Amino acid sequence: MNIFVINSGSSSIKYHLYKMPEGQSICSGIIDRIGLKGSVIQHKYWNEGEEKKVVLNMDIADHENGLREVIYLIAHAESGVLNDPGEIELVGHRIVHGGKEFTTPVLIDNNVKEKIKQTFQLAPLHNPPGFQGIEVAEKLFKNARQVAVFDTAFHQTMPEKAYRFAIPNSFYEDLNIRAYGFHGTSHQYVAAKAAKHLGSETIKLISIHLGNGASITAIQNGQSVDTSMGFGPLSGLVMGTRSGDIDPTVLLYLVNQAGYQLEEVSTLLNRESGMLGLTGYSDMRDITKSMQRGDQSARLAYDLYTYRIKKYIGAYVAALNGVDAIIFTAGVGENDAIVREMVCSNLDYLGIIPDLEKNSGKTVGIREIQSNASRVKILVIPTNEELKIAEQCFGLFNKGYKSDL
Amino acid sequence: MNIFVINSGSSSIKYHLYKMPEGQSICSGIIDRIGLKGSVIQHKYWNEGEEKKVVLNMDIADHENGLREVIYLIAHAESGVLNDPGEIELVGHRIVHGGKEFTTPVLIDNNVKEKIKQTFQLAPLHNPPGFQGIEVAEKLFKNARQVAVFDTAFHQTMPEKAYRFAIPNSFYEDLNIRAYGFHGTSHQYVAAKAAKHLGSETIKLISIHLGNGASITAIQNGQSVDTSMGFGPLSGLVMGTRSGDIDPTVLLYLVNQAGYQLEEVSTLLNRESGMLGLTGYSDMRDITKSMQRGDQSARLAYDLYTYRIKKYIGAYVAALNGVDAIIFTAGVGENDAIVREMVCSNLDYLGIIPDLEKNSGKTVGIREIQSNASRVKILVIPTNEELKIAEQCFGLFNKGYKSDL
Repeated sequence: MNIFVINSGSSSIKYHLYKMPEGQSICSGIIDRIGLKGSVIQHKYWNEGEEKKVVLNMDIADHENGLREVIYLIAHAESGVLNDPGEIELVGHRIVHGGKEFTTPVLIDNNVKEKIKQTFQLAPLHNPPGFQGIEVAEKLFKNARQVAVFDTAFHQTMPEKAYRFAIPNSFYEDLNIRAYGFHGTSHQYVAAKAAKHLGSETIKLISIHLGNGASITAIQNGQSVDTSMGFGPLSGLVMGTRSGDIDPTVLLYLVNQAGYQLEEVSTLLNRESGMLGLTGYSDMRDITKSMQRGDQSARLAYDLYTYRIKKYIGAYVAALNGVDAIIFTAGVGENDAIVREMVCSNLDYLGIIPDLEKNSGKTVGIREIQSNASRVKILVIPTNEELKIAEQCFGLFNKGYKSDL
Repeated sequence: MNIFVINSGSSSIKYHLYKMPEGQSICSGIIDRIGLKGSVIQHKYWNEGEEKKVVLNMDIADHENGLREVIYLIAHAESGVLNDPGEIELVGHRIVHGGKEFTTPVLIDNNVKEKIKQTFQLAPLHNPPGFQGIEVAEKLFKNARQVAVFDTAFHQTMPEKAYRFAIPNSFYEDLNIRAYGFHGTSHQYVAAKAAKHLGSETIKLISIHLGNGASITAIQNGQSVDTSMGFGPLSGLVMGTRSGDIDPTVLLYLVNQAGYQLEEVSTLLNRESGMLGLTGYSDMRDITKSMQRGDQSARLAYDLYTYRIKKYIGAYVAALNGVDAIIFTAGVGENDAIVREMVCSNLDYLGIIPDLEKNSGKTVGIREIQSNASRVKILVIPTNEELKIAEQCFGLFNKGYKSDL
């Protein structure tokens, strides 16, 4: 089954075509700067075992036009990977926020679309462009089934004590204010990989997704039991441009005493804070270089970043009353050995002892980087949210399917 | 030396007269509902080893009038404990917020008063009435030295990674936005008691202050290294009426999407949330009764309250890379065995194992409530912030004084 995975943002669409259940990557790419100057499509495909690239610089007015170009590439005489785009049987959509409603992937019909619209208020930046991706795909892949996969769904197993805030019950009951959690597809993917690697599903895991966004999840027997992102994707760990956890009094103070508008505070916490606010850079590679040149603000930023992760590890060890393995994944988690070392050092009381030589090696597939004395495994696992979405879509129509990818 | 300790709030003054260095309580009480209907002074004093009570119901227009009445009681022919209020040599003031400036108790002069005024913006509810207490005491105890003791001071040893938020550096440098921490006097008091009880000062402690306000502190070798309250006294643990930690996106959502004013959100999080918001009660004794009657919202509130503490214990065990003892103190911490049991159960991975029988006993002095198998001591220690203030004031003028109270 050919499954086309779409991750539709406000000015970009990431896509990936898989042959399932093999999980074979056929082509993938990104349509970027939609509706802006300098639109571009960066397309990759496999040809006789070799990866080929196509770059199209052209005006792309909207999502529909962008996706039309991709379809053209997919069935192109030269670069094409399918004879006909009609061979795509299923389109899987990444939708960030599933609200209280969606706990598993769903086949999209009008009823589902209505319910997704009702989540716009919960994720005003993310869900409307995700929805737009659905509408465009319905038009362009008329014969394919459309499936929505939600970033929040994996966390719907959290117990009430983990997802409720200590505010009056009516805010939960009437306004759906609770922790939802995000990056669910990634946490679920690496947790499944870890379970397979360790040969057991009845284990306690802490999954640490460190990309530009970052979150950490406590997982017991394959189910999310707590996670650091909450009602929105702002709380928890320090991120590229997001503050993560912050005393709410700071927001009140900035508006009431320091003359800020609340909109400015929102922009501050979401786009100007985190590593960017502390160092001037949001990319960890730049910050590493600064730190290595002796820059004190870069050093402090690394301290804050890793100390926050360390405390969450402790919190989730307490929540789980133990841990069998911790997992580092996503851009920073997979590639930044300094972060992993700073997080895992001085945690031997929890049974976590890294091997610094193993830690500094390159990631190819799953790696164990704990020392022999460590009671807890420390794993580096490359995440693959798009493949996980393809798997979940395939599983929806093939009962009993269990990924062994 | 007779030391009179004052804790001045907006409509109340708590006071306690000690003979130091003995730490002998001479009299104490509260002036309540100042400037409101139904003002009252509840005064207790010791007479030949017996505690006596005086209740004065009378109009009390302001702090000065209230304190005049207390002075009258102190030197009263019948109930008096001193011949002359002039025998009070020192007045110790509890000031909630010391900002970045005050890291230890200080003798109050005009310069100190100016600096305390500059902290009003950081603690608009607490510091102005504390300052008023100073001004009234200066007038009424003309010959006494006035000393300020700050609730934030103990936490000034926190490392930068613990007290900084991940927001642009200018907010720290220009606006002093950082975590300060509170309940410092209480945490310091019980930590010193624990160190003495365990016969070592080079130990790792986690102190859990559970009153109507609540906070938890990681302490290494007698110094605070992290604490759950931050810029203000709202963040961290679930409290009587305060939410504790909450995703800042919730504040943004309530104003931007749900039509609330920011002032209403501030009132919501500070006065209508926490246990009150979850159950309708802010007093744990009422909530215990509800839970024992099978009330589900009371059960959930206990779950949230104790789960939050449990996670902070884990976080601080990670921060300290170990823990020798955890300490429960203040009203709920000293008296609520159910809270202690729920917090400490299922933490054996961290070496924490409670003895349920010892836990359910009554607190008289310091008690150990861990089981024999527990690697970590679990201590219940009654706090005494007023005595700690008296000790610190005495120590300021008696170098080398070391409390053995």
